[in-house]
Amino acid sequence: MNIRVKAIVLIFSGLCSLGSLNGQNPMGVTHSGQSTSQAPFPLTQYTELKNPAPTDGESWKDLSGTRCAWGNTYTRYKKEVNPRLNQKKIDIKGWKGERVAAQLVVSSAIDLDNVSVEIAPLTHSSGKQSISADRILKGFVRYVMTDELNKNQKGTCGPRPDLSQFDSTLVADPIDHLAAALPIKAKTSQGYWIRVWIPEDAISGNYSSDVLIKNNHEVIGKLKLTVQVQQRTLPQPDQWAFHLDLWQNPFAVARYHQVPLWSEEHFRILKTELQPYAEAGGKVITVPIMHHPWGGQTYDPYETMITWVRKIDGSWWFDYTIFDKWVEFMMDMGVKKEIGCYSMIPWKLSFLYFDQATNSMKELKSKPGEQAYHDLWLSMLKDFAAHLKSKGWFDITHIAMDERPMPDMLKALKIIREADPNFKVSLAGSLHKELSDELNDYCIAIAEKFSEEMKAKRKAEGKITTYYTCCAESHPNTYTFSNPAEGAWIAWYAAKENLDGYLRWALNSWTIEPLLDSRFYTWGAGDTYLLYPGGRTCLRFENLVAGIQAYEKIRILKTELQTQNKTATLRKLERVLESFDELRLLKTPANVVVEKANLFINGL
Amino acid sequence: MNIRVKAIVLIFSGLCSLGSLNGQNPMGVTHSGQSTSQAPFPLTQYTELKNPAPTDGESWKDLSGTRCAWGNTYTRYKKEVNPRLNQKKIDIKGWKGERVAAQLVVSSAIDLDNVSVEIAPLTHSSGKQSISADRILKGFVRYVMTDELNKNQKGTCGPRPDLSQFDSTLVADPIDHLAAALPIKAKTSQGYWIRVWIPEDAISGNYSSDVLIKNNHEVIGKLKLTVQVQQRTLPQPDQWAFHLDLWQNPFAVARYHQVPLWSEEHFRILKTELQPYAEAGGKVITVPIMHHPWGGQTYDPYETMITWVRKIDGSWWFDYTIFDKWVEFMMDMGVKKEIGCYSMIPWKLSFLYFDQATNSMKELKSKPGEQAYHDLWLSMLKDFAAHLKSKGWFDITHIAMDERPMPDMLKALKIIREADPNFKVSLAGSLHKELSDELNDYCIAIAEKFSEEMKAKRKAEGKITTYYTCCAESHPNTYTFSNPAEGAWIAWYAAKENLDGYLRWALNSWTIEPLLDSRFYTWGAGDTYLLYPGGRTCLRFENLVAGIQAYEKIRILKTELQTQNKTATLRKLERVLESFDELRLLKTPANVVVEKANLFINGL
Repeated sequence: MNIRVKAIVLIFSGLCSLGSLNGQNPMGVTHSGQSTSQAPFPLTQYTELKNPAPTDGESWKDLSGTRCAWGNTYTRYKKEVNPRLNQKKIDIKGWKGERVAAQLVVSSAIDLDNVSVEIAPLTHSSGKQSISADRILKGFVRYVMTDELNKNQKGTCGPRPDLSQFDSTLVADPIDHLAAALPIKAKTSQGYWIRVWIPEDAISGNYSSDVLIKNNHEVIGKLKLTVQVQQRTLPQPDQWAFHLDLWQNPFAVARYHQVPLWSEEHFRILKTELQPYAEAGGKVITVPIMHHPWGGQTYDPYETMITWVRKIDGSWWFDYTIFDKWVEFMMDMGVKKEIGCYSMIPWKLSFLYFDQATNSMKELKSKPGEQAYHDLWLSMLKDFAAHLKSKGWFDITHIAMDERPMPDMLKALKIIREADPNFKVSLAGSLHKELSDELNDYCIAIAEKFSEEMKAKRKAEGKITTYYTCCAESHPNTYTFSNPAEGAWIAWYAAKENLDGYLRWALNSWTIEPLLDSRFYTWGAGDTYLLYPGGRTCLRFENLVAGIQAYEKIRILKTELQTQNKTATLRKLERVLESFDELRLLKTPANVVVEKANLFINGL
Repeated sequence: MNIRVKAIVLIFSGLCSLGSLNGQNPMGVTHSGQSTSQAPFPLTQYTELKNPAPTDGESWKDLSGTRCAWGNTYTRYKKEVNPRLNQKKIDIKGWKGERVAAQLVVSSAIDLDNVSVEIAPLTHSSGKQSISADRILKGFVRYVMTDELNKNQKGTCGPRPDLSQFDSTLVADPIDHLAAALPIKAKTSQGYWIRVWIPEDAISGNYSSDVLIKNNHEVIGKLKLTVQVQQRTLPQPDQWAFHLDLWQNPFAVARYHQVPLWSEEHFRILKTELQPYAEAGGKVITVPIMHHPWGGQTYDPYETMITWVRKIDGSWWFDYTIFDKWVEFMMDMGVKKEIGCYSMIPWKLSFLYFDQATNSMKELKSKPGEQAYHDLWLSMLKDFAAHLKSKGWFDITHIAMDERPMPDMLKALKIIREADPNFKVSLAGSLHKELSDELNDYCIAIAEKFSEEMKAKRKAEGKITTYYTCCAESHPNTYTFSNPAEGAWIAWYAAKENLDGYLRWALNSWTIEPLLDSRFYTWGAGDTYLLYPGGRTCLRFENLVAGIQAYEKIRILKTELQTQNKTATLRKLERVLESFDELRLLKTPANVVVEKANLFINGL
């Protein structure tokens, strides 16, 4: 598609420089002129950007009224297209404790001013039990602006100062559970998501319900939903093994919702915004321990959670008030396996601190190998270790590095060991065999592969081994223009590779108007966030969670099959997993691979 | 004189903006291109700016070689003029413990490349006792650039963005005790200052010495100096009653000498720089308790000595490390009567603090009458009071205000009383009768007059009552172009008015190159400092100290005369004091009045 959204791009580009204002949007109004970030929280109504694509007349020519039908959970149904769906009844399968989902689509040739969806209680065929409404998440699949891969079709790395150079389209992604009803304009389609979190104590069997689509009080569609609850039980997310490490950005939340950082209001909102991460079994608490570990690469840069003060005698004083509050908050949310502390080797080797003598912020510019760097970090890490021990967190805390030149990493490691030989260390970077023994949590890009020996040794030593994707990958990925099934594929791949999990550098590093426009001034749209404001999840995130559930199910099934010596089935399972090969993704889309694999394990 | 120094002015104007860089001169080189502020401290050699005035040919026509003779201590001998002095022998009178001074002038028609001055031991006529060299301060009276009064001849208030609009001349002011020798160019004059601090235990009588002026090893002049030590004894400065309040600026010292604020090196240099203030009987320690109490009016703004931190819960945390160190340092210097804390009502009602949540400096803009202002200051003052009590300094500490609108001052006072009813308060401002009872230290401009009743009541209650001059006054004042005797006049005036002392807002708020150029971008040259770098005193300061000594002598003489019932002499003394009337200064220069008065008291 070649339609450009130049006006928006221009405004957007102009606002990019706001990043330097500590991510503050001084006007409280976003570039579309809407107050999407205004109180009261959460905002329940907002207007999407104008669709740059024209109506697909051909698809609408046979429809005079409104059509409601089931689609699937992998497809971003286009707003301007009538997908001509027919399915009126859907069966979805799941284990007890599992989240299963379906997507219906309303396509209307006429204007509808107030469409809502009602689900009658999901009742067991025996009539004896039902799944209550609080186990159901339902919401409109909203349209957000996206862009595309780099022109060479190789990932999305690099700056995009002029977004008009990229095709900009509306795509279905955010699941808006907050809008009770929406208008649907003539000749547009609207997806609707229904997710059922099967209770762990449900009895197995079929639970059915009517799904009513209404315009005001008039029923304009009626669909049948059946959830087939299987015998097996999926444990709750806090029991999951999958090591999910999605970097949280509380600074984006404070800016977007215009609340003071670390205020009660901020934490109240964070509880909503980060709930999906906790419910996805998020394992790692992201902690910036110094100013701007990644420079200003996100719209809202990461500020230090540890206060650095240089006293007039030149000694350092560190305060952990924010750190403690944040860590305790995340632990209360259920995220408590690991604390990842960034970064001893930040992208810009500059350390901002409050200088008491001059009553001002100062920068210490120093790099590994220099005395000042050594003294600073030795002092910091010793103090930090003592604090962590006093809190009982030392054993879960990792001094975390991104990929940096090897000599720098080795020098940093030496200081860490000097401060406390038992400090845990993590790295998200390249594969360096010589570092593996040093790294308690080691994450490499999908293109690189740990040897089976390394993985086995690491597992035996209780070390975590994962992989990541970022702007380098075209597929699999979680851009807003990615095939949503790639989200699921990502977790399946970890199962195939016998990895512990997955890392992504951005859970919610929002753009200026994340609900409206997922494009950023670097990388592909959606690269910087997987969750939308208001605790809204999305096709990408729900597919990722589905994949993680599959990972957990495979883990359980493997144990079960091994115990029962069902080697033939085990081999079949391994063959299914073999199909998760990123090099084949261009030929066979992720949804095909994932659907087939799901069919297999749901049939076991 | 109408000669302009445009080149310097242009460079100077360009550098004014450096004030915003926290007074840092990043190049370490001042505008004349000299490293006057470089290590080692103290710098002993520097080159003055070029004399904009041409040689006064007429005055030199009778001189073929070099002439050395005594001048007086009130005159700024001009560099380009031969003053045709003849006096080869000088007698100066003083009490035991008093500092007495003389100035000699070397005028040379020929180039002299290395002039120095030697003083043989000052030996008592009996030959039994002498005054040792460590009691003698001697140095060249150097030339510094100055300007002039405002065009209307009324003071020097207001900005001077274009110094070329003011007559710029070199004037004799700094006493350079650090240069062992100087060249003297043909047809220039060079003053030389000799100050003798008579030991308290000296026997009275005449102490004489030969003063040899040499060029290299050749004696080019020989003068006779006699100090007549009188019977009476002047106590040491720490015993003086005169309430001298000259605001110290340690920030200028750190910037000029390029040492880190509050470092050991800084304090080591401060000890030298502030020694003359301590030896002048300085009584008050100047303490900025918040950021920029007077905005950026000085080249080196005052930074807070109390660290203000806003914690993430919104509460305040104050740290007194700098405050304690500074106060203890000044007390060790001998300045310990009063701590003056500026300011609850700063010129810009904005309070800078370190904001822990955002890891940045923030400003709270709030004014008296607002809840935020009340809460901030109540919290600060309560914490401060507790700290002061723990240090034993509460009773000497004054919450200090400059003149502000009366409603603001009353609101500030109310908060002070709420924080601690016993807090002492000072004001340098206008005369408000209704405030007198509230103010433990009250200082008003010379143009205003306390009533005799107010002064008596204040004295009875142990309250301090003083006056000040600033840019508003043409005479008396201590600009570098002022009659130096006005410095002495200022203290005599306090004696006449029965005031406790004198306040000046700037002891050492240096210009960028104080040794070379006393002009600033506001006010008359020299308004911002009375001391020069390297612990160098000057004609203005030495005259001020002479006046303070006279004040102390008058105090002692009055008691003596009253005790001895010498009412006629007392009346004569009162009549002498009556001559210190600022309105008569234009007709009768200060040196005439002061000289006459000195003659009188030295004759008692």
